[in-house]
Amino acid sequence: MHYEADWKSLDARPTPDWFDNGKFGIFIHWGIFSVPSIDFDQNNHSEWFWSYWQEYKKPKYVEFMKKHYKPGFSYADFGPQFTCELFEPDQWADIFKHAGAKYIVLTSKHHEGFTLWPSNYSWNWNAMDVGAHRDLVGDLKAAIKKVGGIRFGMYFSQYEWFNPLLIQDLKKKLATKNYANMVSYPQMIEFVNTYKPELIWSDGDWSASDDYWRSKEFLQWLFNESPVKESIAVNDRWGAGTWGHHGGYWNVIDHYDPGHLVAHKWENCFNLDRFSWGYRRTMTSSDVRTVLELINELARTIACGGNLLLNIGPTADGRIVAAFELRLRQLGRWLQTNGEAVYGTKPWIYQNDSNIWYTSRMRLDRKLKPDRIFNPQVEKNTIVYAFVMQWPHYGHLILPSVKATSKTKAQMLGHNHHINVTPYEGGGVKLDIGALDWHSLPSFDAWVIKLEYLETERRNPVKELIKQGLLDENGRPSNIDYLD
Amino acid sequence: MHYEADWKSLDARPTPDWFDNGKFGIFIHWGIFSVPSIDFDQNNHSEWFWSYWQEYKKPKYVEFMKKHYKPGFSYADFGPQFTCELFEPDQWADIFKHAGAKYIVLTSKHHEGFTLWPSNYSWNWNAMDVGAHRDLVGDLKAAIKKVGGIRFGMYFSQYEWFNPLLIQDLKKKLATKNYANMVSYPQMIEFVNTYKPELIWSDGDWSASDDYWRSKEFLQWLFNESPVKESIAVNDRWGAGTWGHHGGYWNVIDHYDPGHLVAHKWENCFNLDRFSWGYRRTMTSSDVRTVLELINELARTIACGGNLLLNIGPTADGRIVAAFELRLRQLGRWLQTNGEAVYGTKPWIYQNDSNIWYTSRMRLDRKLKPDRIFNPQVEKNTIVYAFVMQWPHYGHLILPSVKATSKTKAQMLGHNHHINVTPYEGGGVKLDIGALDWHSLPSFDAWVIKLEYLETERRNPVKELIKQGLLDENGRPSNIDYLD
Amino acid sequence: MHYEADWKSLDARPTPDWFDNGKFGIFIHWGIFSVPSIDFDQNNHSEWFWSYWQEYKKPKYVEFMKKHYKPGFSYADFGPQFTCELFEPDQWADIFKHAGAKYIVLTSKHHEGFTLWPSNYSWNWNAMDVGAHRDLVGDLKAAIKKVGGIRFGMYFSQYEWFNPLLIQDLKKKLATKNYANMVSYPQMIEFVNTYKPELIWSDGDWSASDDYWRSKEFLQWLFNESPVKESIAVNDRWGAGTWGHHGGYWNVIDHYDPGHLVAHKWENCFNLDRFSWGYRRTMTSSDVRTVLELINELARTIACGGNLLLNIGPTADGRIVAAFELRLRQLGRWLQTNGEAVYGTKPWIYQNDSNIWYTSRMRLDRKLKPDRIFNPQVEKNTIVYAFVMQWPHYGHLILPSVKATSKTKAQMLGHNHHINVTPYEGGGVKLDIGALDWHSLPSFDAWVIKLEYLETERRNPVKELIKQGLLDENGRPSNIDYLD
Amino acid sequence: MHYEADWKSLDARPTPDWFDNGKFGIFIHWGIFSVPSIDFDQNNHSEWFWSYWQEYKKPKYVEFMKKHYKPGFSYADFGPQFTCELFEPDQWADIFKHAGAKYIVLTSKHHEGFTLWPSNYSWNWNAMDVGAHRDLVGDLKAAIKKVGGIRFGMYFSQYEWFNPLLIQDLKKKLATKNYANMVSYPQMIEFVNTYKPELIWSDGDWSASDDYWRSKEFLQWLFNESPVKESIAVNDRWGAGTWGHHGGYWNVIDHYDPGHLVAHKWENCFNLDRFSWGYRRTMTSSDVRTVLELINELARTIACGGNLLLNIGPTADGRIVAAFELRLRQLGRWLQTNGEAVYGTKPWIYQNDSNIWYTSRMRLDRKLKPDRIFNPQVEKNTIVYAFVMQWPHYGHLILPSVKATSKTKAQMLGHNHHINVTPYEGGGVKLDIGALDWHSLPSFDAWVIKLEYLETERRNPVKELIKQGLLDENGRPSNIDYLD
Repeated sequence: MHYEADWKSLDARPTPDWFDNGKFGIFIHWGIFSVPSIDFDQNNHSEWFWSYWQEYKKPKYVEFMKKHYKPGFSYADFGPQFTCELFEPDQWADIFKHAGAKYIVLTSKHHEGFTLWPSNYSWNWNAMDVGAHRDLVGDLKAAIKKVGGIRFGMYFSQYEWFNPLLIQDLKKKLATKNYANMVSYPQMIEFVNTYKPELIWSDGDWSASDDYWRSKEFLQWLFNESPVKESIAVNDRWGAGTWGHHGGYWNVIDHYDPGHLVAHKWENCFNLDRFSWGYRRTMTSSDVRTVLELINELARTIACGGNLLLNIGPTADGRIVAAFELRLRQLGRWLQTNGEAVYGTKPWIYQNDSNIWYTSRMRLDRKLKPDRIFNPQVEKNTIVYAFVMQWPHYGHLILPSVKATSKTKAQMLGHNHHINVTPYEGGGVKLDIGALDWHSLPSFDAWVIKLEYLETERRNPVKELIKQGLLDENGRPSNIDYLD
Repeated sequence: MHYEADWKSLDARPTPDWFDNGKFGIFIHWGIFSVPSIDFDQNNHSEWFWSYWQEYKKPKYVEFMKKHYKPGFSYADFGPQFTCELFEPDQWADIFKHAGAKYIVLTSKHHEGFTLWPSNYSWNWNAMDVGAHRDLVGDLKAAIKKVGGIRFGMYFSQYEWFNPLLIQDLKKKLATKNYANMVSYPQMIEFVNTYKPELIWSDGDWSASDDYWRSKEFLQWLFNESPVKESIAVNDRWGAGTWGHHGGYWNVIDHYDPGHLVAHKWENCFNLDRFSWGYRRTMTSSDVRTVLELINELARTIACGGNLLLNIGPTADGRIVAAFELRLRQLGRWLQTNGEAVYGTKPWIYQNDSNIWYTSRMRLDRKLKPDRIFNPQVEKNTIVYAFVMQWPHYGHLILPSVKATSKTKAQMLGHNHHINVTPYEGGGVKLDIGALDWHSLPSFDAWVIKLEYLETERRNPVKELIKQGLLDENGRPSNIDYLD
Repeated sequence: MHYEADWKSLDARPTPDWFDNGKFGIFIHWGIFSVPSIDFDQNNHSEWFWSYWQEYKKPKYVEFMKKHYKPGFSYADFGPQFTCELFEPDQWADIFKHAGAKYIVLTSKHHEGFTLWPSNYSWNWNAMDVGAHRDLVGDLKAAIKKVGGIRFGMYFSQYEWFNPLLIQDLKKKLATKNYANMVSYPQMIEFVNTYKPELIWSDGDWSASDDYWRSKEFLQWLFNESPVKESIAVNDRWGAGTWGHHGGYWNVIDHYDPGHLVAHKWENCFNLDRFSWGYRRTMTSSDVRTVLELINELARTIACGGNLLLNIGPTADGRIVAAFELRLRQLGRWLQTNGEAVYGTKPWIYQNDSNIWYTSRMRLDRKLKPDRIFNPQVEKNTIVYAFVMQWPHYGHLILPSVKATSKTKAQMLGHNHHINVTPYEGGGVKLDIGALDWHSLPSFDAWVIKLEYLETERRNPVKELIKQGLLDENGRPSNIDYLD
Repeated sequence: MHYEADWKSLDARPTPDWFDNGKFGIFIHWGIFSVPSIDFDQNNHSEWFWSYWQEYKKPKYVEFMKKHYKPGFSYADFGPQFTCELFEPDQWADIFKHAGAKYIVLTSKHHEGFTLWPSNYSWNWNAMDVGAHRDLVGDLKAAIKKVGGIRFGMYFSQYEWFNPLLIQDLKKKLATKNYANMVSYPQMIEFVNTYKPELIWSDGDWSASDDYWRSKEFLQWLFNESPVKESIAVNDRWGAGTWGHHGGYWNVIDHYDPGHLVAHKWENCFNLDRFSWGYRRTMTSSDVRTVLELINELARTIACGGNLLLNIGPTADGRIVAAFELRLRQLGRWLQTNGEAVYGTKPWIYQNDSNIWYTSRMRLDRKLKPDRIFNPQVEKNTIVYAFVMQWPHYGHLILPSVKATSKTKAQMLGHNHHINVTPYEGGGVKLDIGALDWHSLPSFDAWVIKLEYLETERRNPVKELIKQGLLDENGRPSNIDYLD
C-alpha cells in the first residue's frame, strides 16, 4: 500500500490490529516537571508547571518558587535535579507486564521541549546532556523489549511553550517555519529511525496547522518508508482541527469517554492520579483512583470501541511510587482472571445495560473484516462478556439486553460454579449470582459474566446511534468539533 | 508520690492510664537518613544508613555513595537536602487522627545525633540550623495539640554513632562521661522542659550502663519535678540490661510480640514498611503491610496486654507518602467501626483461640485496680470481643474458650443483625456468621464479634503462663534476658 | 560602496580608521569554562576545558572531574554555577577606560557554544536561561557605551566542539549544512541586529570552508546592509585558509607578532595570563605578565602596523581579579603619559633598532591615503617616537636609524627637560638621557623619546621586506600559509 | 621554671627569643566566611559576615543573601561550599618562605566557631566533617615543617557569636560556664596536644573575664606541662581587660602601631587587603597595599620593638590569590637584600628621624640581657640600620640622630658602593646617596643604610618616653587602657 501526503489517503490506513486487540496501555508522563512535581489546583497538572509559573504567572506557582528557590532560579536550573538515579527500567517493565498492559506511551518530549533521548535538535536540553545523563527512551525501550508482549510508544509534543524559534514563528503568524524545520520535524524523523516506536502519540498540535508541522509529509514517510511502516499506530493530534478527523485512532480531548459506540478506533487517556499527569509529591491516597474505578473505566471504554491508556507519573529520581504500583498490580491481578473479556474482544451489538458493560468475541470470525467496529450476535458463534461493577441486590443480576435460549450458558470468570439463567419478566435475563459462595469470589470489586449461546440478533448499533443523533451520518460523534 | 533514683522506686510508678487505654500509636522515623532514604538488604533499615556506610563500610552503601555523590561527600553534606519544604504538620495530624492513633512518637534524635529541635547541645547539627530551618518537633507538637485526642511522644537516642565525645568516652571505657554530661543528659532536660512530651521513648542505650546515661537521676527528676510528671509514660531502654526489667512499659526488642499475656504493660513497635523504619525510596507496594496484617497485629498485641506502635517514615521533603497514608486511613476506618473492642479494653482471661484474639471490657469496674493486667469474667459485667481475621468455612465460627449461657448475646460490630450462638460439641460455642448478608459486612478484612453475658469463670491467665513456663514466677516473660 | 559576495570585493573594503587609530583593545574570555577555570599544562588553556576533558580525554582533566565532581557530572552541569553574581559592568568599563583601551572584544560565544546573550538559536544554553540569568552582552555593551570612547566588539566562534548538528554535518563531509543554517549563521545576523557591535572577531573557522559558514554572504550583508555597515571592523578567520588572506584585518594565529612591518592591518592577540585566555584559578603572580612586558609587546606590535588585543579572563562570579586589574591600570597610567606615541600613530620608515621600536605621526597628512601602511619621513612634518624598554648603559641611548639635523629636537614624554642629541660615530644619533634626574622619570619601566625634525628620508620599508623575502610580492608575510 | 596560675607568675615568663628575632609573620584568616567572602563597607570585614548578617542584620548583608540565596539559607549552609579543593599547602609554604616570614598564624577557629581541625568539641562544624573534608590545620602544619625555618602558630577565638552554650552562659551572666567547660577550654587542650603550635593567638576574649575562659589555668598548663612549654609564644587577649597587661607579647587592638618604643614585646597585626582580614572577592587592586606600604609598616614596627603580622585571606577553594602572592614575593625579595636589618635586630636608642626608622645589632652581646628592649649605642659594637622610605631631594639623606665619628662607615644594603658621610650643620649627618647609579639600586621602593662605628651615646629611650608621658612609669603605653 502506498500513501499520499493528503488526509484522504492517510486516513484510509487502518489502525494496526495489535492496537485494537491490546485494549490497555500505560501512559508515562516524565520529564523536568517531575522535579518540582507539584501543582496547586485541581484543575492544574504538575507537568504544566513551567507554563503556570512563567507564562501565566499564577501566584501560587510564583510564590512557591520564591519561597523555596534562590532568586533568578530558572526552569532550566531544575535540569541537574532530574537525576533518575533510581531508575530501573527492568523494574518498570515488570510492573507494566504484571499490570496487564499491552503497550506503553512515554512522553519522549513534553511541551517543555526537554527530550528524554539525546536529540541532535535539543542540545543541552535533553536527558543525556543534563540530569540523568542517560538515554531514557533507549533504556526503557530495551527493558520493554526484554519482558515481551508490550509495544513501545512515544508521546511527542509538536509544541514547545518557550522555544524561541517557535515563538518567533508564531509572532510572524507562521510565515516562517524555522521551529518546525529545525526542531519538531527533524526530531520525529530522528526518533523513529533510532527507537522504532510502534505508536506515536502526537500532541501540542493545537497552535498551528498540520501544514506548519509538516504532519502529512511526516505520516506519508512514516507509513510508506519508515522502519515501522507496518506496525505503527498513530493518534489524531496532527494540527489544529485534526482531532477526531484525521491521522490514526482518535484521542480527541484528554479523558475522552463518549459513553457510546464510536465508529472509529479511539483511545481514552485516563490518569491514575485523578488530578495530574505528571507526578505530584502532594498527591494524597484519595487522589489515587481505586482499582474499581480503573476497572469501570476500562469496561466503559472497551465496550464502546476504545482503548484505555492509563497514566502514571514517575518521580525525578526514576521511581514508580508504591501507591501507583499497588493499583497497577491490583488491576493486573484482576485482568489475569478477566483478561479473556478484554484482550482481543470487540464491542457487541449492545454496549451496556446501565452500568453493566458488554464486550464480545467470535468463536470463528473468518468472514468478518478485522477492523469491524463491533461483533454481530450469532447464537453459535458469539461469546458475550458482561462487566458487573456493583453487586446486585439479593444477588439477582438483571441484564435487559440479553436474550437467552435454552442453550445459553453463564459463568463468572474465575469461578467454577454454573450460574442459573432465567428469563426476566421485563425482557432480558436474570442471573442468580447470589448463590455463589462469596468468600470464593475472584474479586470483591467487579466481576465478569461470560454468556454463551445467546439468541441470534441482527442489530447495527452504529445505525441506532445515528438515528439518536449521537453519531453523524459518517459514524463520527456529532459533538467532536464542539470539543475542539 | 515521690520517687528515689533507684530502680525499685522508679519501677513502682504505674504506667499512666492514657497509655494503656490508647492501645494504638504512630511511630515516626524522620531525620537526615530520610535524605538518602535507601537500603540494600531486607535486614537493613534506611535509618541506619550512616552506620552501614561509614562504620560497617558495607559494599553496596559505599558503592551507592561513590556512584551518585561527589568524592568526599560526607553524611553531614546530606543536611541541606533535608528541606522538609512540603511538611504540613496539620496534614500529618489529620492523618494520625483519622488513623485512630491515640499517641505519636517522633524520632526527635536518632543515632545520627541530628536533633529535630534546635538543641543547644547539637549546634549546627539540628533542623533549625541545617536543612529545614524549622523547629520540627515544636511544629508537629502544635499541630497534634490542635487536632486533639492525641498525645505527643518523643523518641530519643542516648547513643550517637559518630559523636566524638561518646567515642572518646567509650575508648576510655566510660571512665569519662563527657558525652552524657555534655550532650545526652542536658538534651533530655532541654526537650522535656521545652516540649513537655507525654511519652519518652528512650533508645540506643545498649552501649553503656544506666549509670553512664544518668537514667535513674533523669527519671527521678522526670517523675518528681518535671512539667510532665503526672502524665509522662516512658519505656524500658535506659541502659544495658534494663529492657524488660526497668523504667516504664516494656518495649524489649523491636517488634516484640510474645503471643501470650505479659504481666507488665508492654508495647509492640511495628513497621508499616516491613523492611525499614526510615523511609525507603525503593519501597515497593508489596513491602507495605496490608490492612489485614495491621489489624491482625493490633489484635494479637492488645489481646496480650500490649500497645501497637505502628511506624511510618516520612520523606526528606516532609511528606507521608500516599502508600502509607492509604493504610493508615484504611486502618482508621476499620477502627471507627471496631474501636469499641480496642480503646480502653483489657485482656481477657483467655487471650486467643488460634488466630481469634480476645479483649474485654467491664460494665462496672469500681472495685478493680486500674492497672490490672486482665479483666475477670463475670457474667453480668464482662463484655468480650473476639477478633476474627479469617472468614470461617461455611460461616461457622467456633470459639472453644467461650462458655455461653442462655443469656449470651453475640453481635458483629458494625452490623445490626443478631448472631445465633449455639454450644459446640467439643466445648465452646459456634456462631453462625455465614447467615449475614456478605455485601453488608462492615469489612472484607476482619471482624469483631461482641459477646455479652458469658458464663462467669475464675481463671488467672498469668498463673497459667507461669505453670507453662512462659512467665517466670514474677510474671515476667522467661525469655526476655535471652533477647537482650 | 556596494560589496559583492566574493573575496575580491569584500577584501577591498578598508579597515575602519577607528580601528587603526585605536591600537589597543581588551579581549575578554568569559563563559562556562570560567566555572572550572583550570588547566593542567602550560600549553593548555582553561577555555578549552571541555575539549581536553571529553574530546581528548586528557588524564589530568578526567582525574580532576573524577576527584571533585559527582559521577556523571556533565559540562552542562557547570551552567548553574556561572552565576556572575558580582558582575558590575560599570566597574569593568571603568577599568577598561583607565587601561587606555579603545575597544573591547567579548567572547559572545566560544567553542562550547554557550552564548552570553539570549540567542534564539542556543535555547537553554545561554546566559539568560542558565546561570547568570542575565544578558551579559547587552549589559556590558551598555556600560561601555556609558563610559564613552571605547568600541564594542564581539568574538564569535563559528565552530562548536559538541554541537550535534555540526558533528553530523562534519560526518557527512559538509554535504549537509544544518549547523551553519540553523545555528551559526542566524546567530550572527541576530547579534549584529541586536547589539550592533563595531567589531566581529570570527574564530573556530578552521574546520570548514567559508562557503560552509556562509561567510561571504554574511560579510556582504554586514558591509552593505547591516546597522553597522559603516563602522564595523572584522578579522580574517572566515573559513579554512582565509586567515592572512581574506576578510578584514589579519589576526592570523593567536599571538601573531611578525617582528616586521606587514602590508595589511593586523592585530596581535596577547594574553595577560601568559598561560591561558580563560581565567585560571591556579594562576600565580609570575604567570601574570609584567607591565614592562605589556609595553614592550604594544610597542613591537604598533611599530609593525598591528593592534594589540590584550586578553583577560574574568571569573565565573563576574569579577576581573585584582592581579589583572593592577596590570591594566598600570598600563593605563603609562599610556596617559605616552599615549601620544600610540593612539593615531602609524609605523615609520624604520620599525626598530634592536629592541627600540618606532612609531610616527604627521603634523599634516592631507595628501596621504588614510589607510597607508606607514608614514613617510619628512623633516618638517614627521614626528617619530622611540620606545625604550631598557635603560641604556650610562644613560647613552644609541639610535642607529635616526638621522638628525641641526633642528632635531628630542624629549622624553612626561618629562620637561630637553635631551641632548649628538651624532653617533657608527651612524644615527646618541641621546644622553642619563642626565635626567632619575627620580623625576615618568616611569621606571619604559620611556618614549619624541623626535622631531629628523632628516627627510625616502624609504619604503615594504619594498625592503620584499627584497629580504619577509614579504612576498603582494606585501603579504611569506610565512602566513605555513602558519595555517 | 614553674608557673603559678596567677598573672604575676605567668606574666613573668619571657617571650621566646625566636619570636623577637623573627620580626615578620603571616596571619591567615580562613574559614566558612571565605565562602561568601564579601563585605559592603570599608569599616567591615568579610570574616564578620555572619554577625553583620544575622546579629546586626545590616541591610546590605540581608539584601545580598536575599538576592543570591534561596530563602532560609543559613550560615551553616555555606559549609559544603568551603571545599578547599585547590588547597596545596606546599605551595602556601613556598610563598611564605619566599615572603621571608618566620612564623605564620592560622585562624584555627574564628568567631563563627568552625574549626579547621577535626575537633571533638565542634562535631559536624569543622573542616573534616563539612566542606573540605580535610584536616586543614594538620596539613598546613606539615607543609610548614617541611619547608623549614617557619614556626607554626594558631589563632583561636574564645568567643563564638552563635554558640548556644555561650549565649546561655551570657544570659545567666556567666553564672554557668558550660561553653568554656565544654567547648573553648577543651579545644585549646586538644589542639595544643595534637598540633603543638609554637604560638597561640587568643582572641574573642572581650566578652568574659579570664576566669570564665579559664585562661590562667590554661597558661599554667601550657607553660609548665604542655608539649610546647619551652617554645610557645602567646599574645595578650585572655579575658576582658587583659590586653596590654597580661599574657605574653602584646597585641592590644588590631593594627596596634604606637609609633614609639614600647617597653614590652608587642605585635602589629596588619592586613594586606586594607579593608578586610578575610578574603573579599570584591577586593580591587588599589585595596591591596603596595610593597612600599608594607616595608614602611615593617620598619615602623620593628624600630619600636614590635613584630609585624601581615594578614592574607585565602579563598574558599584554597588559594592565595595572585594579587596577594605578588606582594608577598615582592616583600620577600626586598627582605632577601635587607633582611640583615630586620631579623634578629633590636630597636636602637633612637627609633626614627621623621619617616626614617632605625634598628640595630650588636657585634657582641654577651653581657646584655637577651630580652632587652633596645640595643645600646657603643661605637665599636653597635651596627645601626636606617630604613629610607622616600628618595631624598637631590639624593641628600639627612639623619639628625646619627652622630658620626671619623671611623663611621655607611653602605646601602645590596649595593657595593661606599656612601660618603659628612656631618650636617644642624646636627647629625648627611649621606650622599644620590651619587649611586640609580639603575643599579637594589630597589625603587625603599633602602636600608647600614651605619657602623657611630659615636657611643648613653641614652635610654624608655626613660625619655616616660618623661614625655607616652609610657607610664612601668614602661607601658599610657593609652592602652583607653583602647580597651
